[in-house]
Amino acid sequence: MAKKVRQIDAMKSPRFTQVATFARLPNLRTLKNIHAVFLGIPFDDGTTYRTGARLGPQAIREQSRLLRPYNMFLDVSPFESLNVVDYGDVNVVPGYIQDTFKKIQKDVGKIVKNKVVPFIAGGDHSLTLPVLREIALVHGKINLLHFDSHFDFWDTYWGKKYTHGTWLRRAIEEGLLNRVAQACIRGSVYSKSDFEFARENAILVKTIREFHEKGVAQVMNEIRRFFPTNEPLYVSFDIDAVDPAFAGGTGTPEVGGITSWDALECIRSLLGYKLVGFDVVEVSPLFDPPSQNTALLAANLIYEALCVLAKTKSV
Amino acid sequence: MAKKVRQIDAMKSPRFTQVATFARLPNLRTLKNIHAVFLGIPFDDGTTYRTGARLGPQAIREQSRLLRPYNMFLDVSPFESLNVVDYGDVNVVPGYIQDTFKKIQKDVGKIVKNKVVPFIAGGDHSLTLPVLREIALVHGKINLLHFDSHFDFWDTYWGKKYTHGTWLRRAIEEGLLNRVAQACIRGSVYSKSDFEFARENAILVKTIREFHEKGVAQVMNEIRRFFPTNEPLYVSFDIDAVDPAFAGGTGTPEVGGITSWDALECIRSLLGYKLVGFDVVEVSPLFDPPSQNTALLAANLIYEALCVLAKTKSV
Amino acid sequence: MAKKVRQIDAMKSPRFTQVATFARLPNLRTLKNIHAVFLGIPFDDGTTYRTGARLGPQAIREQSRLLRPYNMFLDVSPFESLNVVDYGDVNVVPGYIQDTFKKIQKDVGKIVKNKVVPFIAGGDHSLTLPVLREIALVHGKINLLHFDSHFDFWDTYWGKKYTHGTWLRRAIEEGLLNRVAQACIRGSVYSKSDFEFARENAILVKTIREFHEKGVAQVMNEIRRFFPTNEPLYVSFDIDAVDPAFAGGTGTPEVGGITSWDALECIRSLLGYKLVGFDVVEVSPLFDPPSQNTALLAANLIYEALCVLAKTKSV
Amino acid sequence: MAKKVRQIDAMKSPRFTQVATFARLPNLRTLKNIHAVFLGIPFDDGTTYRTGARLGPQAIREQSRLLRPYNMFLDVSPFESLNVVDYGDVNVVPGYIQDTFKKIQKDVGKIVKNKVVPFIAGGDHSLTLPVLREIALVHGKINLLHFDSHFDFWDTYWGKKYTHGTWLRRAIEEGLLNRVAQACIRGSVYSKSDFEFARENAILVKTIREFHEKGVAQVMNEIRRFFPTNEPLYVSFDIDAVDPAFAGGTGTPEVGGITSWDALECIRSLLGYKLVGFDVVEVSPLFDPPSQNTALLAANLIYEALCVLAKTKSV
Amino acid sequence: MAKKVRQIDAMKSPRFTQVATFARLPNLRTLKNIHAVFLGIPFDDGTTYRTGARLGPQAIREQSRLLRPYNMFLDVSPFESLNVVDYGDVNVVPGYIQDTFKKIQKDVGKIVKNKVVPFIAGGDHSLTLPVLREIALVHGKINLLHFDSHFDFWDTYWGKKYTHGTWLRRAIEEGLLNRVAQACIRGSVYSKSDFEFARENAILVKTIREFHEKGVAQVMNEIRRFFPTNEPLYVSFDIDAVDPAFAGGTGTPEVGGITSWDALECIRSLLGYKLVGFDVVEVSPLFDPPSQNTALLAANLIYEALCVLAKTKSV
Amino acid sequence: MAKKVRQIDAMKSPRFTQVATFARLPNLRTLKNIHAVFLGIPFDDGTTYRTGARLGPQAIREQSRLLRPYNMFLDVSPFESLNVVDYGDVNVVPGYIQDTFKKIQKDVGKIVKNKVVPFIAGGDHSLTLPVLREIALVHGKINLLHFDSHFDFWDTYWGKKYTHGTWLRRAIEEGLLNRVAQACIRGSVYSKSDFEFARENAILVKTIREFHEKGVAQVMNEIRRFFPTNEPLYVSFDIDAVDPAFAGGTGTPEVGGITSWDALECIRSLLGYKLVGFDVVEVSPLFDPPSQNTALLAANLIYEALCVLAKTKSV
Repeated sequence: MAKKVRQIDAMKSPRFTQVATFARLPNLRTLKNIHAVFLGIPFDDGTTYRTGARLGPQAIREQSRLLRPYNMFLDVSPFESLNVVDYGDVNVVPGYIQDTFKKIQKDVGKIVKNKVVPFIAGGDHSLTLPVLREIALVHGKINLLHFDSHFDFWDTYWGKKYTHGTWLRRAIEEGLLNRVAQACIRGSVYSKSDFEFARENAILVKTIREFHEKGVAQVMNEIRRFFPTNEPLYVSFDIDAVDPAFAGGTGTPEVGGITSWDALECIRSLLGYKLVGFDVVEVSPLFDPPSQNTALLAANLIYEALCVLAKTKSV
Repeated sequence: MAKKVRQIDAMKSPRFTQVATFARLPNLRTLKNIHAVFLGIPFDDGTTYRTGARLGPQAIREQSRLLRPYNMFLDVSPFESLNVVDYGDVNVVPGYIQDTFKKIQKDVGKIVKNKVVPFIAGGDHSLTLPVLREIALVHGKINLLHFDSHFDFWDTYWGKKYTHGTWLRRAIEEGLLNRVAQACIRGSVYSKSDFEFARENAILVKTIREFHEKGVAQVMNEIRRFFPTNEPLYVSFDIDAVDPAFAGGTGTPEVGGITSWDALECIRSLLGYKLVGFDVVEVSPLFDPPSQNTALLAANLIYEALCVLAKTKSV
Repeated sequence: MAKKVRQIDAMKSPRFTQVATFARLPNLRTLKNIHAVFLGIPFDDGTTYRTGARLGPQAIREQSRLLRPYNMFLDVSPFESLNVVDYGDVNVVPGYIQDTFKKIQKDVGKIVKNKVVPFIAGGDHSLTLPVLREIALVHGKINLLHFDSHFDFWDTYWGKKYTHGTWLRRAIEEGLLNRVAQACIRGSVYSKSDFEFARENAILVKTIREFHEKGVAQVMNEIRRFFPTNEPLYVSFDIDAVDPAFAGGTGTPEVGGITSWDALECIRSLLGYKLVGFDVVEVSPLFDPPSQNTALLAANLIYEALCVLAKTKSV
Repeated sequence: MAKKVRQIDAMKSPRFTQVATFARLPNLRTLKNIHAVFLGIPFDDGTTYRTGARLGPQAIREQSRLLRPYNMFLDVSPFESLNVVDYGDVNVVPGYIQDTFKKIQKDVGKIVKNKVVPFIAGGDHSLTLPVLREIALVHGKINLLHFDSHFDFWDTYWGKKYTHGTWLRRAIEEGLLNRVAQACIRGSVYSKSDFEFARENAILVKTIREFHEKGVAQVMNEIRRFFPTNEPLYVSFDIDAVDPAFAGGTGTPEVGGITSWDALECIRSLLGYKLVGFDVVEVSPLFDPPSQNTALLAANLIYEALCVLAKTKSV
Repeated sequence: MAKKVRQIDAMKSPRFTQVATFARLPNLRTLKNIHAVFLGIPFDDGTTYRTGARLGPQAIREQSRLLRPYNMFLDVSPFESLNVVDYGDVNVVPGYIQDTFKKIQKDVGKIVKNKVVPFIAGGDHSLTLPVLREIALVHGKINLLHFDSHFDFWDTYWGKKYTHGTWLRRAIEEGLLNRVAQACIRGSVYSKSDFEFARENAILVKTIREFHEKGVAQVMNEIRRFFPTNEPLYVSFDIDAVDPAFAGGTGTPEVGGITSWDALECIRSLLGYKLVGFDVVEVSPLFDPPSQNTALLAANLIYEALCVLAKTKSV
Repeated sequence: MAKKVRQIDAMKSPRFTQVATFARLPNLRTLKNIHAVFLGIPFDDGTTYRTGARLGPQAIREQSRLLRPYNMFLDVSPFESLNVVDYGDVNVVPGYIQDTFKKIQKDVGKIVKNKVVPFIAGGDHSLTLPVLREIALVHGKINLLHFDSHFDFWDTYWGKKYTHGTWLRRAIEEGLLNRVAQACIRGSVYSKSDFEFARENAILVKTIREFHEKGVAQVMNEIRRFFPTNEPLYVSFDIDAVDPAFAGGTGTPEVGGITSWDALECIRSLLGYKLVGFDVVEVSPLFDPPSQNTALLAANLIYEALCVLAKTKSV
């Protein structure tokens, strides 16, 4: 594939037509001459509350029909400088978390070993653990910027070590991570010990209160100061970081979050970082209103992250 | 393409994964060695009441994930004897009916000239007119079996000759049709003159009352007697033939229709006919409940019709 | 008003346009030269379970846009022989049942004293009591055909005599009724004593089982034998007589009911009776799927009843 | 507990009030002097398509508020002769099927060893396997009447032996079952071999076609002839046996099923059998319309089964 | 009850399991050793627009499953220092406002006389009047902080003195109140006289404009200056104070309100006050999107208020 | 019509009763002694993505029931100083854009020639072109304030010059406009050339970023400086200017928009301008949640604009 990968031309083919792929890019299982892939991981057996995130990737594809070629706020046409394809989904194993982890690792491993950056649509947050394992294999210990309303570092649920609420502790235990920052934390929690764990592990925690009191720009500046720009960065965006008014299509909503504009600005503010991977997780379209706002936002977040990659690369 | 076209294997890849194509068949714009295609026509500017049928093809694709390889009632595995692909959608011209007709004719014309049978998902019923034009070009005057709660032979709406309520009169005027039968007619109508038009044009009209009083098997027998089996048959299925309890996702619903089982049996009863084309129209997913029953039924009707083709062909 | 009252012409003004009145008839507070009125009674404080029927009349108006001039099954154009207007709604008193009853009686009293037949859209079933009071004032003791899944002759709820579950006992006690038949009764009930009350009051009870076992035509024949055709008949149709698959938009649904076709046939089978009033009650649009099937069915039931009146009158 | 267990009195406490328990019975973790329990198993990690059945038990409780004391068709007041409680839910282990099986077996084992009959609300169909294990421990090989649109005896999915599509094969392999009958089978299937498996295992298969052609009463008579009345019978009712028009709130819907009345009659026709357990599975409320028809039907099916037990016992 | 009242342990029993009680606390009709109760008042006959708030308490219970033990923003574990139970619902009398008021007064009277603080989930706003009557009986004239988009001091509706739009005038007339402040007032109103009434009664009115221009913290500071901290305070929170984007599940929505974060901060800012009662009213779940944001917010508001009580008490 | 036009009195007739007209004003096709009309244009064949805006006017009427006589923020009772009627809808020609344009021009032309100000509810944005043509005929080149997330000055779509994405370029080409300002622009776009077009045409573009960074008041001040107050101003408000959390009921949503309060303030800030017309377009109620927030906001925006007219006029 030497030629450019292009979106279907909306001037010839209206955006509501044709099979739904991410951003109307070709659905191809290839990595040759590709810079980035959209990868779906439709898995939700790691959820501790409402399921449904397995329907996330397809909903995000459907809403991504609206993504057009030029980003006015970052002044970049991402698909001019990047070849991107819709790589399809991981063939998950419903009901079996660790078997699914293996499948994820196989696909993500192949992608990152080919120096292709994965942009992942979940699925529940448990999937970030196997993704990080493969990223770390290639890039070494990585910095993680984690947007979420929840800490996700509980040790076990019902005696089980692998769930969407424990993946981050596992990733830390497995030595995959270097610096970790968390943003938008809120909601009632099981115990005050969550904060202690953060402190012991030198995690930078930005609760939602900081966002509301200082504004997104200021908090993101503080986060930028925490992560050196010359170190690889992985961003994991749990959609419940956003307020359920803007992103109700999720399984464990917490009121009081950031807006959709805030979320977009968070991603845009990462300009200059070398993204080694990005995921948006916990989109559960059955809880969305008919407008499917949450999947639409998720599609836009992936688009903004692609633009960051495109812009950073072209500089 | 000499080898068989296969559905994605659900034993390796769960049915809710991967990009949504019809019946998880490949999305290919090819006609070589192909016997039948799924073709979407996402157009709804011909509707006189509620729009939304432009979203029909994609909803049908999404629900067709459940279609499995073997049909127990017709005892046939359609994709064993037929190579079928998802041909994508016609690139319609929203807001411009006659321009869209040209686009439809171009795509359908190419398909039928290659001796491939189109299985079409609408879109509103106006699309059947350009489809019939191309079918008639290849097969000559054709027999039409028309399931609908409405006659669709009003002359004009607001002075306009091309709408989803006038296509059948146009097709008759254009000399495209040989024998015509209509099934499931009901609802209040504009005038008694509809019946006169039917009589003048020797159209066999089976109102819904006959279905309720005689049963589907008997009515379909009468319809079979009307159509010689050695003549090509086109079937146009307006989903509002079915009761809105079973198929509420449509723009002009009429209470009192047939059930989903009845609808399936109607199609199965066509075993032995040489199908030259098939369409399911007026699926408007925004009016469907969350279970998306209407799109699911539409996917099954297309599947049954494919099975009729497969079984008839193999006999 | 000497000239005919007409629906807005759908050939000039598409049916989805203009302010929603019943069947697109004029919204006029007049009784002069009028044969029948559509009257909304948007009241739901008599409900013992889920509220929302106050939104019924407007939903029925909205769905009645689809009603066209000619009824093919009764072979009648109702608005040719009847002048019908949308009389608007009773100005109910939310939260105050007996005050509302007075308002209902004032409006209905005026209507029936002018020899105009009211076709009423509820609202909860408690409203039938004040309606019957006024009908009986004009016509004397009347025959009542009551479609419902519930008996509605419990004595009190929480010590209260006026609710949607007690109106029929009150009507009997008040001496308003002559012969009473009930159809479609089903569901679990509070006590076996309901059947005893029916027997003591010589009420003809047709449970849903008879409908399923004998068919609608046979049961309706038995009901016709019960009511002399020369006696005035009032028909009260609780939409929950119909199965919730066909009419889920209601507050106290009971599974196992008749279909929408059955419901239409029940009304059509009343040809020849002198209707003195008709109501459809308990339509609660918030429980309807987006297609609004229940309101659509209710609109059609009123239309069929109007056709019965038109046809019976013209004979 | 020597005194009768009673529903909350709807004449004092309106049915929409108070905490939602099954049929407004007390929520008690006791088996003393209890004849039957309602048990929720909110588990859906065994689903191969859409999840969400973990929300089934609570939705069924919510809709069961409408269940009243007397069943007119079976002429029985079940809670007069049976002490029934809402036993709560099994504490399942989300994401871990076999751990959940252990939890199910512990709770169900305790129930059946105390000679209490479990009436179970799922959850996905995989749960029937651990339930049958415990039932068989107490009652020996048991007869199983299985309502479903699917056979559920595929060997594995993605190499996994425990899913909602394989439980019945496992139960047969584990020697838990004596006679097995299946009813309402339909839909496209993976392979014709399903029928061979049924034949090899002497399973009585009643496809949906028999229901549509012979009627429910006749098919159920044939099923009754298959099962001796003096042998214990377990009934497992996958709600997708019912048509999605009546029960769309499920994860793997198949069009063309039985009606809600048919479903009720199926259960009622079991009068005379000694029920040793009953389950309704695959209720997934997020796919239900706002009226929550599916959960309402499921609540009624459990009620009818309780009435069968009450009536059979009292004879 | 000497021992602590505990939530069901989510580490043993997943949060989506078991009967829905508020915050998974026990459903007990006891006041012994209890500091606070959750009380549902499922009544909506006082509504002047859309009904449905009778379904509020159960929806709030369902969403309260997500409430966990520790509040990070107030640094308190409310159920450590407070014994709280779900006291169930008031047995309201649907359709009869004043009878319902008596029932409310009986239950609330008993609660407050036992020095237990009621946390009430409505139900429509008319219920606050009988609650205040009982609170005032125990505490004397009380200070009222009223969040709402509406003034609620119209004299009558349709000649009726008791509705959800008149309760506050009644409370003032009955001499129940000392200082009154209103927050978030907006929307079109019937007349400018509402402002005059406020002035005449020395009510502190904070329209929504002040919130948007000064920010929540500043407005709440001004409100705090208005209420002495050593005087008992009752807080009534009409959920329509919040913007319908965040809390659309209500009967009389007004665009332009505060966010969910703002709402949480309003409650948190009351730290230090002696709460004698708290209500959240007008939650009408049928108007909520599938994520049930409004009920979730209401559950969180009650939780924050409980935390204020717990923290204030422990200081 | 010499006497005042009044809303139906909500103190006599509850707001949920009676036929739905805008703000419960009379539905009259008169211009005599009228200052402003509400006009529906239920047309959506100009949409390039999701249809459904033809259902906008009726949804806005339904939600406008909540509009009361007095506006507290502008301190004006609009219907005191203005006679306003619901003029009904334009009889559009579905599927035929230019025929519809003629119908629009005929109705709007008559209105503006009678010196009546039209307040228009769409319908898709293509309708603003024919409206501007008639406005310009009467008022000469006019100033346009355009709220939208999209520029709408693409040249053609699929070779077609008239769509909802091209109307503004057409209006400029046709010489209808004097000064043009655009507000809330955002989202991905087809090309950077959109900005060049704006510059070449001296259009003041305020992207959404300015709103988020400077606040609404500041941006609106800058817009006010751009438009002389003594020049006639037309305001076209595409509801997708607002964030989909607040206004999801639209066909081409873009995340990251303004809030509903912001939108109201934008309109209020126009006090002092001579409004010659106002439209709210792209309200598509099928994408709205059950609370119908978008239609409610649209009704309020029209109300605020009417208040601006009333207040400006009375000064």
